[in-house]
Amino acid sequence: MNQQKGRVTIPTDLDVIPQTLELMEEWGADAIRDCDGTDFPKELCDVDAKIYSTYYTTRKDNQWALENPEEIQQVYVMTPFYTADGDVLKIHLMKGLYPDMLTPNSRDDIRRWWEVVDRTTGEVVPVEKWSYSEEDGDVTIQTEAFHEYTVSFLAYIMWDPVHMYNAVTNDWQGVEHQITFDVRQPKTHDYTMKRLRKFIEDHPYVNVLRFTTFFHQFTLLFDEMAREKYVDWYGYSASVSPYILEQFEKEVGYKFRPEFIIDQGYYNNQYRVPTKEFQDFQAFQRREVRRIAKEMVDITHECGKEAMMFLGDHWIGTEPFLEGFEEIGLDAIVGSVGNGSTLRLISDIKGVKYTEGRLLPYFFPDVFHEGGDPVKEAKINWVTARRAILRKPIDRIGYGGYLKLALDFPEFIDYVKSVTDEFRTLYDNIKGCVPYCVKKVAVLNCWGKMRAWGNHMVHHALYQKENYFYAGVVEALSGAPFDVKFISFQDILDDAKLLDDIDVIINVGDADTAHTGGEWWVNPEISAAVRKFVYNGGGFIGIGEPTAHQANGHFFQLANVLGVEEETGFTLGYDKYNWESHEHFITEDSSDEIDFGENLKSIYALEGAKILVQKGKRVRLAVNEFGKGRAVYMCGLPYSFENSRMLYRSILWSSHDEEHLYKWFSSNYNVEVHAYVENGKYCVVNNTYEPQETTVYRGDGSSFELKMEANEIIWYEM
Amino acid sequence: MNQQKGRVTIPTDLDVIPQTLELMEEWGADAIRDCDGTDFPKELCDVDAKIYSTYYTTRKDNQWALENPEEIQQVYVMTPFYTADGDVLKIHLMKGLYPDMLTPNSRDDIRRWWEVVDRTTGEVVPVEKWSYSEEDGDVTIQTEAFHEYTVSFLAYIMWDPVHMYNAVTNDWQGVEHQITFDVRQPKTHDYTMKRLRKFIEDHPYVNVLRFTTFFHQFTLLFDEMAREKYVDWYGYSASVSPYILEQFEKEVGYKFRPEFIIDQGYYNNQYRVPTKEFQDFQAFQRREVRRIAKEMVDITHECGKEAMMFLGDHWIGTEPFLEGFEEIGLDAIVGSVGNGSTLRLISDIKGVKYTEGRLLPYFFPDVFHEGGDPVKEAKINWVTARRAILRKPIDRIGYGGYLKLALDFPEFIDYVKSVTDEFRTLYDNIKGCVPYCVKKVAVLNCWGKMRAWGNHMVHHALYQKENYFYAGVVEALSGAPFDVKFISFQDILDDAKLLDDIDVIINVGDADTAHTGGEWWVNPEISAAVRKFVYNGGGFIGIGEPTAHQANGHFFQLANVLGVEEETGFTLGYDKYNWESHEHFITEDSSDEIDFGENLKSIYALEGAKILVQKGKRVRLAVNEFGKGRAVYMCGLPYSFENSRMLYRSILWSSHDEEHLYKWFSSNYNVEVHAYVENGKYCVVNNTYEPQETTVYRGDGSSFELKMEANEIIWYEM
Repeated sequence: MNQQKGRVTIPTDLDVIPQTLELMEEWGADAIRDCDGTDFPKELCDVDAKIYSTYYTTRKDNQWALENPEEIQQVYVMTPFYTADGDVLKIHLMKGLYPDMLTPNSRDDIRRWWEVVDRTTGEVVPVEKWSYSEEDGDVTIQTEAFHEYTVSFLAYIMWDPVHMYNAVTNDWQGVEHQITFDVRQPKTHDYTMKRLRKFIEDHPYVNVLRFTTFFHQFTLLFDEMAREKYVDWYGYSASVSPYILEQFEKEVGYKFRPEFIIDQGYYNNQYRVPTKEFQDFQAFQRREVRRIAKEMVDITHECGKEAMMFLGDHWIGTEPFLEGFEEIGLDAIVGSVGNGSTLRLISDIKGVKYTEGRLLPYFFPDVFHEGGDPVKEAKINWVTARRAILRKPIDRIGYGGYLKLALDFPEFIDYVKSVTDEFRTLYDNIKGCVPYCVKKVAVLNCWGKMRAWGNHMVHHALYQKENYFYAGVVEALSGAPFDVKFISFQDILDDAKLLDDIDVIINVGDADTAHTGGEWWVNPEISAAVRKFVYNGGGFIGIGEPTAHQANGHFFQLANVLGVEEETGFTLGYDKYNWESHEHFITEDSSDEIDFGENLKSIYALEGAKILVQKGKRVRLAVNEFGKGRAVYMCGLPYSFENSRMLYRSILWSSHDEEHLYKWFSSNYNVEVHAYVENGKYCVVNNTYEPQETTVYRGDGSSFELKMEANEIIWYEM
Repeated sequence: MNQQKGRVTIPTDLDVIPQTLELMEEWGADAIRDCDGTDFPKELCDVDAKIYSTYYTTRKDNQWALENPEEIQQVYVMTPFYTADGDVLKIHLMKGLYPDMLTPNSRDDIRRWWEVVDRTTGEVVPVEKWSYSEEDGDVTIQTEAFHEYTVSFLAYIMWDPVHMYNAVTNDWQGVEHQITFDVRQPKTHDYTMKRLRKFIEDHPYVNVLRFTTFFHQFTLLFDEMAREKYVDWYGYSASVSPYILEQFEKEVGYKFRPEFIIDQGYYNNQYRVPTKEFQDFQAFQRREVRRIAKEMVDITHECGKEAMMFLGDHWIGTEPFLEGFEEIGLDAIVGSVGNGSTLRLISDIKGVKYTEGRLLPYFFPDVFHEGGDPVKEAKINWVTARRAILRKPIDRIGYGGYLKLALDFPEFIDYVKSVTDEFRTLYDNIKGCVPYCVKKVAVLNCWGKMRAWGNHMVHHALYQKENYFYAGVVEALSGAPFDVKFISFQDILDDAKLLDDIDVIINVGDADTAHTGGEWWVNPEISAAVRKFVYNGGGFIGIGEPTAHQANGHFFQLANVLGVEEETGFTLGYDKYNWESHEHFITEDSSDEIDFGENLKSIYALEGAKILVQKGKRVRLAVNEFGKGRAVYMCGLPYSFENSRMLYRSILWSSHDEEHLYKWFSSNYNVEVHAYVENGKYCVVNNTYEPQETTVYRGDGSSFELKMEANEIIWYEM
């Protein structure tokens, strides 16, 4: 097979026509794309490559939006909390919000679609007790003194948040605000389908329509100073309207309340244990989004083109990991690859013909300037992504931005050539093959597969200081030789045999969040099922505040399984004598100062548990036996090769498989071994930017010494 | 007045008769006491001094206990949590408990007084589903597989826990275990009163009966290895019996459940938000304890003696800070003084004729040995206690232990002489006078005055790593020029005007504990009352996780008052721009690195709040304006002179009184000024062991420079 061509997409522009052709040759690209701010040169229309074109379903047509103001997209917004100092309170709705972006929707019946809540009692304020003045934008409420109030209201999105973000971030001056319209409403729906057909007719040379935004918008709000105010890449609050909410009411058979979406101002973000009503709403939105997305895809196909979805902006309503996604009929998914988790967020999607990963850095001036080091960024990105690609490959890679900028960096051009070659070799070696999996691991939380690989992720590869030591677990798993499932508590209720097929359950996050489960753990069916699983020999790894919810004499509901408990004050009266640290299989490759992140909860060990690491009488790492099973507790796991190895060993130990450690294994944790038994191949990869030495163990335990170059990947036949 | 004699108690023993007389002269002692392990010499019976004698109401009479085994004192105990792996589970009751200390009480109807709980469902297991085998000590339960179970049972206390503690700690070999009997049961009650009369008759030279243990025992359990297993100085689980529980049922009119006391194994410790049932039980016990204590006191008085209670071991049921305590008729309280908080725990008690503080160190070999430095310990203790004595004096001081040991340390003898003189001068200067109070400060929690000065205290001056930065607040207050009240949430409900008389409210502790209030904050009456208080100009100081309970869109229920909120994951989607630190009145005397303790919660500031200190984007100290009022947030406040000053400034700032800072004030925070306006005196104290220089400000703002010796106290006329 010719490994010199294919599986690579590059950007182009009017000013780089010959260079595009040269680089296509050099990198073996077989697809070309336009980008935001670039135009596709006519001269390349007939080139021997697929041509991608970005397409926006919800904006870039202000005339339509302005002519149909009632079909502009809407968002549910909650005001801040205001305290009444007497029996009347005025709340200015737009305080704290960017004025040009939102306009309160008083066109529809505000008494039905808005909600004033007494947040001190939690009760809805009757509509007779408040009024709205269009003129000054204030809601006036009859109040109880010193209670707090909020107003939940619908607002039209007068400036597409992503367009605004790009305009503000890149300081685009004088740009017309792109208004976002709601393709689910009747007139716009009709118009949108016609508009799509027209676009395709007008661009006959395009092979692939890249739906850069679908139409179910994630949540993004800005404050008065045009600074980002609230963002939720998974948010469901910014694609609502009385039109669809009436459909929702009919479907579920109960009355809609704004609070289903507002959620006390938390907007049902991924940390919130989801309510039934919100899950109903998500299911409704998902089906509707898919139905209309399918219409668009069908038109695309009818016109002889491929349909590709960008998993980056408004993809959320499609929920690619849930059943039925494949019914949309998309040909492809493309997304930006920030790390292993985001790679798997793309590559694990089923029901499309191919997936494509946009590698970093984008060819933008922030990196491609004099003194910039794009090769370094590219190396970090590639090596990070490669770990995950080796477990579940994307089918294509690509780049974005202004090609012209990259041309000034010949070293970068060379490095990308090596990456494209390496990718093609890799893809060829592992395609169609399930890599060898040492264990079956299930990440258990409230979301299950719906948020597979996205737990604790803000968006792309972004994490917060409050959760990087939890997100690290998912990142470690993204490139580890395990069959990783994401399961929910509901899944356990729905399928009594679900856990039979799992070796190790992982529960990671803070107390009372959707990531650990909160109240789910006081459901006897859940706690008994998981206890049974471990008691009969299963492994359980808890990270942070696993199974935590204060009830029934425990903060960690599975304290007796984990062998540790958190001190919240309630057990200070109990003397604790178990503080000695022990050497263990799990920490054999770890350094003396393991980085557990900044999670400094007061965790103590119960009698019988074995502490591996504690600091200042706070347990960081401990193990416990429960029946025939084993549990591991760690307070956090920031991602690093060293910690990834510690997690690997934890999974092996907790599933009683220490003796099989030296199987497709590298003694040096900076190097990993992946085996593709069906294809008779295996590879050894150096994940670092320095040379490494290691002992490589084959599947039969035989081994050999190996010296590797920085970043190197070496392929072997079995 | 002769300041050379009085207000001092010393220990004596058979081997130090002449030395006792010498030291009485030297220290000006006017009372002599025996101690555990010493005998009172007959030769001193006629000395010109009061003679104290320890007296134990519940032990030191094993013959009685063994003859009346059904009246041995009992304790409620919960077993650990056990997981059923099938439909039968056996729980050995005494597992984890010291076998010689407890004997399960199966004499009374175990089906009525014991309780087996399915801790997975929280439900009581019907008595038909379990049985107890006397022979092997096991409870056998018909179970649901993989549910957890506990047994709550009554046990006789076969070895008085304090006696056991002393025996184990001091390695007393071959000592007969003192059994503890229940003076509330009919036969023992009669016997006890006779025994008390007999003791008094047999010791005619004794003037003061020092009830070293009263009879309502605190909770203290030991494990199989005779190590302390569970301790609660404020515990109410160790003085129970079917006899009194039947009375309780009659009084409250509802059925008793062991769970009222067991509380999921948390035994209603001071961190638990108290339930109605537990509070009912406490009220019942309190009245009963006081009734029988009064009987003893009456007999003591009838026999012409004084009755003194030791606030150290079993004092708890008397609740000295609650109404009705004075009805017991006690003449005096004596207690060990570990720090300022414990001093106030004694000196603030009303309804007795005098209070006495036992200063440290005790004359025991741990300090009084070759190379030991008792003077250093005495200085630290005296200076720490003196801060609080200057606010609310005890009436007497004293020492305990083996006088013989102290005689080998002439420097110590001299130092104590200076302390006794200093104490007498001090007492003379401030007696009967309320010291000048700059502000009225209320510590608000679930316990109110019932646990005044004892918040976060384990016992005496002992704190844990989880709470020293909360206990530090109480310690700072114990010697500060404020009128300090401890109020409960119920107090606010009961008295609408309660807060009118308060300048600053303090709420300090961890979320969902009795110290911050937990669910009380979602009671609209409470939150509105406190909001109103601040809005109208009051001060609010929140430390740790003040007002915290997850509900209604807040973790800190008064987030808008405090200007800060805790990140639990739910608000990660909100961008936070308020991170700049500001100089402020509050921190003017603080060093660059303020010690806030180890409380590392993720606290962020809301818009409008002013951060004074943050570290790694975790707010440590912030201020906020709310209406006309002001709030201060700090993440913790370990006790130090520097932090005490910061709290002082916080109280002044939050009550809008910065301009009166320089009033009875020392520029150097190691030195404090206390004014006694009624008596026309004020003093300046150096709280450190080094010389200090300072500017002293009088009440009119006039000032003078002062150089002070280490530890010095200087008195001035106004």
